[in-house]
Amino acid sequence: MRDIYCGVDLGGTKVNIGFVTREGDVIRDVKIPTHPERGAKDTMERVNAAILSLLDEAGMKKEDLKGIGIGSPGPLDSVRGVILKSSNLAGWVNEPIVDMLKEEFSDIPVKLQNDGNAATLGEYLFGCGRDYKNFVYITVSTGVGGGAVIDGKLQQGANSNAFEVGHMIINMKGLKCNCGNEGCFEAYASGTGMAKIARAKLKEGQKSVLCDMCDVDEVSTRHIFEAAKSGDEFAGKLVEDEGYYMGIGLYNVIALYNPEMIAIGGGVSNGLDMFYDKMMETIGSMSLKGNTEICKIKKVKREDCGLIGAAALSFYL
Amino acid sequence: MRDIYCGVDLGGTKVNIGFVTREGDVIRDVKIPTHPERGAKDTMERVNAAILSLLDEAGMKKEDLKGIGIGSPGPLDSVRGVILKSSNLAGWVNEPIVDMLKEEFSDIPVKLQNDGNAATLGEYLFGCGRDYKNFVYITVSTGVGGGAVIDGKLQQGANSNAFEVGHMIINMKGLKCNCGNEGCFEAYASGTGMAKIARAKLKEGQKSVLCDMCDVDEVSTRHIFEAAKSGDEFAGKLVEDEGYYMGIGLYNVIALYNPEMIAIGGGVSNGLDMFYDKMMETIGSMSLKGNTEICKIKKVKREDCGLIGAAALSFYL
Repeated sequence: MRDIYCGVDLGGTKVNIGFVTREGDVIRDVKIPTHPERGAKDTMERVNAAILSLLDEAGMKKEDLKGIGIGSPGPLDSVRGVILKSSNLAGWVNEPIVDMLKEEFSDIPVKLQNDGNAATLGEYLFGCGRDYKNFVYITVSTGVGGGAVIDGKLQQGANSNAFEVGHMIINMKGLKCNCGNEGCFEAYASGTGMAKIARAKLKEGQKSVLCDMCDVDEVSTRHIFEAAKSGDEFAGKLVEDEGYYMGIGLYNVIALYNPEMIAIGGGVSNGLDMFYDKMMETIGSMSLKGNTEICKIKKVKREDCGLIGAAALSFYL
Repeated sequence: MRDIYCGVDLGGTKVNIGFVTREGDVIRDVKIPTHPERGAKDTMERVNAAILSLLDEAGMKKEDLKGIGIGSPGPLDSVRGVILKSSNLAGWVNEPIVDMLKEEFSDIPVKLQNDGNAATLGEYLFGCGRDYKNFVYITVSTGVGGGAVIDGKLQQGANSNAFEVGHMIINMKGLKCNCGNEGCFEAYASGTGMAKIARAKLKEGQKSVLCDMCDVDEVSTRHIFEAAKSGDEFAGKLVEDEGYYMGIGLYNVIALYNPEMIAIGGGVSNGLDMFYDKMMETIGSMSLKGNTEICKIKKVKREDCGLIGAAALSFYL
């Protein structure tokens, strides 16, 4: 039997749990609701039960698992295995989730990393990053996050908080971000940012089919991409602007990290086809040709990189 | 005798050449003019002659040198030992400077890196960075450059062009940078940027003692710091703005690299005392407390970090 590792991709609404091989094959997986409002202990008890069920279905014993890796929203203390406090897991403060998992799986090594790092590792080992030593993963959805592999090694930083790319300032004194800063990359390029900009402009009286599709306060990136596809000019401009903002943010990453490949994931990447050209044109129009010309930018290859990367934490880190 | 390494810190106006120990002690050094207009071959022949003189003075033979390291303006190809093209060394294109050095020192290993990386290594090993694994060096003078050490290793990137921090965009569609981009960190925070902003405002009619100190087109950071010290309000505001711009740029570096220490060098760092508080206040007012609170920011400890770092290339990389 091939070595099997368990990945736990812990999100604000659901937890994806799966058994993964060293080659990145998911041989069995399950999703359960997170229900963070019930507390970390409740969630982790259900995670433990789900792992036991998967073992049972697979005809495996606990000791057949070579390791368990958890990717979780941060900030967290990966050394102690504690989630410090997370806006996506409301009410969770100083939760020793590795210990909670150890209550059932005391003899198995357990690793904890933030979800951006875990997904980066998954896409690096088994997706767009596999042929490169300098690789960046960026996820664009509610927020903007990701991780970086530098010369083959996952960047962690002094206290595991490296690559907070969403809060890099691209426009000082610009749009207010949810974090309190002004001008964060995330305030412009995230799905939330895109929708917020759209709503504000619609309320100023801009004409668009978006007004017919839903209540202005309900406008989401899904609506915007749909309207743009139907030829709506206002939505088309929003999508083009998304390409420009992404271009600026990625240019900064290219200037600093000089990567060979950037993979883009997250919900907004579903519209990547529509803003890819503007994004590349923005990057191509700037300086540092030595950096920009060698860097490929692609949509993520493994949509499940969060899960396989979590599993990979246990054999890669 | 202790092991001796030769560092060559190649700049646009002068070359600093020195013999350095593994402990970072400079036992002997000399500065010669670069004269880049005479061509790379001329410069490197004089560098070779200077190294021979230093050997002679020290009573050493060629084979007593354990290695030679060159820190040079980029972009360059560090693998082939070639300066590709540099705005600071006008006219130099595809210059194989390592081979030129090898003409005299064929049996000694020679390493080439960009000057930002070399200085980073010097300050990391022998200055502010010595107690840390995640360290950033930023030099603020004509431009803004630097380098990063990540988990104890110098970041180089896919083709040795990592950490082009000066061209990170902090204000999209903002001030024009010499590189052609709009809104680069360097366009705001470099000495050149600071002086350019000052001159533009003086030409708009702003009142300041700067107008009495020199011709408006001659205003430099030295004048600005001097005027600010004398209580000039206009110059004081410029210095405060420098603190704000530095704060924004360093915040981005802190968000992405999560370092424990940032050292600031270069000519503008001579005025660091005057804008340090505003810089720290700017960083402290922003989010990502996990990143900002553990990061110390200091003036560079080794003014000669370019030289000792160049020498260290030959035993550290």
